[in-house]
Amino acid sequence: MPALGEFELIQRYFTPSLSSTSYKLPENISIGVGDDCAVLKMPANAELAISVDTQVAGVHFHADADPSLIAARALRCAASDLAAMGAEPLGFTLALTLPSADENWLEKFSSGLLQTAQQLRCPLIGGDTTRGPLCISIQVHGSVPSGKALRRGGAKTGDDIWVSGTLGDGAAALALMEKRMTTSNAAADYLWQRFYHPDIDFSLGVRLRDIASSCIDVSDGLLADLDHICKASGVGARIESVALPIATVWHDSVSVEQAQQWALTGGDDYRLCFTAAPQHAIVLQSVQGVRCIGRIVEGVDILVDDAKMMNSGFRHF
Amino acid sequence: MPALGEFELIQRYFTPSLSSTSYKLPENISIGVGDDCAVLKMPANAELAISVDTQVAGVHFHADADPSLIAARALRCAASDLAAMGAEPLGFTLALTLPSADENWLEKFSSGLLQTAQQLRCPLIGGDTTRGPLCISIQVHGSVPSGKALRRGGAKTGDDIWVSGTLGDGAAALALMEKRMTTSNAAADYLWQRFYHPDIDFSLGVRLRDIASSCIDVSDGLLADLDHICKASGVGARIESVALPIATVWHDSVSVEQAQQWALTGGDDYRLCFTAAPQHAIVLQSVQGVRCIGRIVEGVDILVDDAKMMNSGFRHF
Repeated sequence: MPALGEFELIQRYFTPSLSSTSYKLPENISIGVGDDCAVLKMPANAELAISVDTQVAGVHFHADADPSLIAARALRCAASDLAAMGAEPLGFTLALTLPSADENWLEKFSSGLLQTAQQLRCPLIGGDTTRGPLCISIQVHGSVPSGKALRRGGAKTGDDIWVSGTLGDGAAALALMEKRMTTSNAAADYLWQRFYHPDIDFSLGVRLRDIASSCIDVSDGLLADLDHICKASGVGARIESVALPIATVWHDSVSVEQAQQWALTGGDDYRLCFTAAPQHAIVLQSVQGVRCIGRIVEGVDILVDDAKMMNSGFRHF
Repeated sequence: MPALGEFELIQRYFTPSLSSTSYKLPENISIGVGDDCAVLKMPANAELAISVDTQVAGVHFHADADPSLIAARALRCAASDLAAMGAEPLGFTLALTLPSADENWLEKFSSGLLQTAQQLRCPLIGGDTTRGPLCISIQVHGSVPSGKALRRGGAKTGDDIWVSGTLGDGAAALALMEKRMTTSNAAADYLWQRFYHPDIDFSLGVRLRDIASSCIDVSDGLLADLDHICKASGVGARIESVALPIATVWHDSVSVEQAQQWALTGGDDYRLCFTAAPQHAIVLQSVQGVRCIGRIVEGVDILVDDAKMMNSGFRHF
């Protein structure tokens, strides 16, 4: 049995308010790490949005990857769901399962986690640590004004389909890591950053509360996630392939077909995909990174140009 | 790759509002399973209490145990932390990691889980399913009137120490399962029930909001959990061993010393341990199952009778 017990471990690595003077729990946290429950104050007239996201070693990340990057990515991937609901972050909990209390690993993991928490203004408010195969489960909590949450089910025929930034980066990053692709150093740096530190733009979600008719984050691949919107809304969609935003920095490293395929099905992009009535197009076009990629149509199919596409997103089992 | 994808799996086993007419999501759930986030309405003037509890196959339960019992126990263990804060349940999320989408296992697990959810009036509101070594992480959400949460840190010298029911049942159940003990059939039935379906009494926690000076649930063992209260409150404690409530049904199956040791250090009892000023004794004595076991004293030590005890609760690492 190692020297470090659960309580010391939590105290040392996951009680930021005690271990760092620069990191303060916000006022909405009545009780943070270290009691039976964490207790949060909710803003007035707000609803609570919650989402949990699990990452397993050997499935979602390499067990020997840099623990600070694993942590940064895990928290950002979880937080993406809050942005997709138009919610603002209140805090997160961490359920961490570890083969052993490796202090070197924990030091790096905790440092990446708490730094990301600060960047996202989403503090660690509680959690559980257990022994077992390496597994990270993060639950994020956010607030959204009552009735204003962005849902999947509101897309209407004639709405434009938008994405909040480049697609295919996640698949390209994976191809690079698995040496299925060679790129410039600049492209490698960009893809590394996009994979481990995907941008989470809560302010865009907030702005979309009164604009978007539906919204989802692109985690399983554009077609798979758009299919969720279509199924929940009872509509079909048509994507224009030329409109897909693909980062110029790596675009030329692969064929046009490959780049499009990654943008359509690759997953791990953590962009928002949303629909909005055409009257909002002028405003949306002015938002940096946001691009119209198609239109909601009648039916149940998703077309890319004129071809009916299969849903070929990432299957978890 | 098995036939059952993540989305079908969630739809079939973890979307109770669709699959059962007898199970309705309460009105406080604006959005349940099946969007990027679940969205909850909070009661007015209430704070949100949250706690996450992970159970790993081979560490916290046998991988070949009845999945419906694994589920029942996992949810009850997590819910225990809500009761210990004086919170009332709003709902829970499930992060389930599974080696494969075994439909027989899932059917039983889901049935035990949803039945327990109904018993506790704590509905499933969201979650994540992933592939990997069997691991169950449950986060419970409750509401407590602002400022009324029961904390660990309020015990004062002279307060009585109370527990909400028999202790040592968890350790005895484990001894029975591991064939380190033989008992009557009645005792075996009782211990089985206590292990897999520990009583969670939210109403006691609610009642204690205006009575208890501190509260914790007994999950790691009485001494270990009382030590959390003592450390957080800056006090010591003295327990009278004769006052420890031990179930008569199995008490005679082991020596008095063994029974007391299990009651003091055994863990897995999921009773509440709380402190209260002596003026509340008369009321508390009338509450079924509740028993005074000692008193808060000056200092930092925990004494049992006159002996200073080591903190010997379950160490997670």
